[in-house]
Amino acid sequence: MPGIPRAMPTDNLLWLVLDLAGTFAFALNGALLAVRAERLDIVGIVTLGMFTGLGGGTVRDVLLGALPPATFLDWRYLAAAAAGGLVAFVLGSRLDRLNGTITVFDAIGLSVFAVLGAYKALELGFGVVQAVIVGAVTAVGGGTIRDVMIGRVPTVLRSELYAIPALIGAVLYAAAYSFGYQGTLVALGAAAVCFVIRMIGVRFDLHAPYPPGRRQGK
Amino acid sequence: MPGIPRAMPTDNLLWLVLDLAGTFAFALNGALLAVRAERLDIVGIVTLGMFTGLGGGTVRDVLLGALPPATFLDWRYLAAAAAGGLVAFVLGSRLDRLNGTITVFDAIGLSVFAVLGAYKALELGFGVVQAVIVGAVTAVGGGTIRDVMIGRVPTVLRSELYAIPALIGAVLYAAAYSFGYQGTLVALGAAAVCFVIRMIGVRFDLHAPYPPGRRQGK
Amino acid sequence: MPGIPRAMPTDNLLWLVLDLAGTFAFALNGALLAVRAERLDIVGIVTLGMFTGLGGGTVRDVLLGALPPATFLDWRYLAAAAAGGLVAFVLGSRLDRLNGTITVFDAIGLSVFAVLGAYKALELGFGVVQAVIVGAVTAVGGGTIRDVMIGRVPTVLRSELYAIPALIGAVLYAAAYSFGYQGTLVALGAAAVCFVIRMIGVRFDLHAPYPPGRRQGK
Repeated sequence: MPGIPRAMPTDNLLWLVLDLAGTFAFALNGALLAVRAERLDIVGIVTLGMFTGLGGGTVRDVLLGALPPATFLDWRYLAAAAAGGLVAFVLGSRLDRLNGTITVFDAIGLSVFAVLGAYKALELGFGVVQAVIVGAVTAVGGGTIRDVMIGRVPTVLRSELYAIPALIGAVLYAAAYSFGYQGTLVALGAAAVCFVIRMIGVRFDLHAPYPPGRRQGK
Repeated sequence: MPGIPRAMPTDNLLWLVLDLAGTFAFALNGALLAVRAERLDIVGIVTLGMFTGLGGGTVRDVLLGALPPATFLDWRYLAAAAAGGLVAFVLGSRLDRLNGTITVFDAIGLSVFAVLGAYKALELGFGVVQAVIVGAVTAVGGGTIRDVMIGRVPTVLRSELYAIPALIGAVLYAAAYSFGYQGTLVALGAAAVCFVIRMIGVRFDLHAPYPPGRRQGK
Repeated sequence: MPGIPRAMPTDNLLWLVLDLAGTFAFALNGALLAVRAERLDIVGIVTLGMFTGLGGGTVRDVLLGALPPATFLDWRYLAAAAAGGLVAFVLGSRLDRLNGTITVFDAIGLSVFAVLGAYKALELGFGVVQAVIVGAVTAVGGGTIRDVMIGRVPTVLRSELYAIPALIGAVLYAAAYSFGYQGTLVALGAAAVCFVIRMIGVRFDLHAPYPPGRRQGK
């Protein structure tokens, strides 16, 4: 492997803000789901929120050999994730009427994480296939860890269009990058495609294909 | 990051003994819980004991980028954890009358792991926030992994005063360290506070706060 | 630790073929189990197949501090694992009559992973105890992660002779290696012993010992 810079592509203020907003939204959303699914105390709720917000980036950095994880080194990510978990603990079910807003922020997080994950892998010298996998893992890893910890089969494995938009966003960006287009506009475009597909999936309740011969209904 | 020494602060014989005793107690306790919860064979019981004894330190070293994990490199930790699992396998329910003693040793493990985890993070140049998180993760990580593996929502997320004393111990030590007090006595003091709070929690069946509007009872 | 070469002992074409066949078989088998146990979409099935095929090697490389994981760097392992998951998705229950063949390939994977895991640890300068643990973890780690993700207590912890043959194969190879015998023939011999014990266990439905005083039946 080439030298490992350990820097996130967040020198750009826009990306930093989007990345932190995504971390906060993931943590908030993850903690809310945990509150509804299980009887947890403040430790459990904040912990699951932080796992949801930071888990994807941590797995990404294990796969990239870029330890310690950037999400752990930078206190702003820790603070954004802890804030998301604490807000979910304090406000809880009163956030229900904000469900639409939270879904939008969650989709922003998904898109930003997918593209930034792929970007980090490519910058570290990994191939396109690895970058796509890492992008998707960054985007869906946190929610997967949360679900496993509360004993649920991860949502991403069985329903909703969640991993597919992340994969598409990562593929688009990795393809553009390998042709020499790696600027902010290209990255924003790839993230926007991921975001739109995710929101269309939410709106029309789309799902990834099920095995042949099996009904899509419950 | 500064150079990574990869040494545990266990040159001190007292700490080494406490750390190994904690590892043994965690493994014994973890394996006993596994025996009661699920029908496991010898492989499962010893494995879950070792995960409980060594899991926290392994996650700690992933977060600190200090791989290979110290718990894996040093055969004494492997032996202490395997011994705990084997004793649980052989003696099983006959250990029930030792429950009080095992709880005390488990609390020792919690306290030692929290302070040593924070110490290692600080020695490697991490900040106070990271050190506190790492201290708590070292203390509760093993039990969390065990619970997830047998399909239970981790106890630490929903009941008992378990993570809170670890956090307090790690905060106390990290604060003292950042003011220049990092000697053995200070560390022992922080561990003792963690231990006392944990034992008070066990004695009076205390819990961390639940979300507003929810009853504390089942 | 000595310098970390990060090379798999797969210069040898035979080992490479066996390793890839094992990865494919693990992924196929893991995805089939996931299809039967849970209602998963294509993302879930292929993901669980890849986790089963690549998970053991990933945990191995975390423990050995040899990140990024070799299974992730080399596209051939990614392709073999993805192919296994896709075949399981497309053919699904039609593979039932191939159960015997799949079990044989799975046992090949178990044997190859156990010996190659131990080999990698020894080549990196780890001790015999560590090499045996790493060999067993490489062999059973993928299936364990899959089971945890779909909310099952890992099979390896409670039934079948699965971890024991892997441990025996790793012990045999590590012992031979430490006496200076580390050639391909020795490794093949250790893998063959693991394979034969596993197949005997399947044929006669053998189990690892349960705790004293507990019946072996359900």
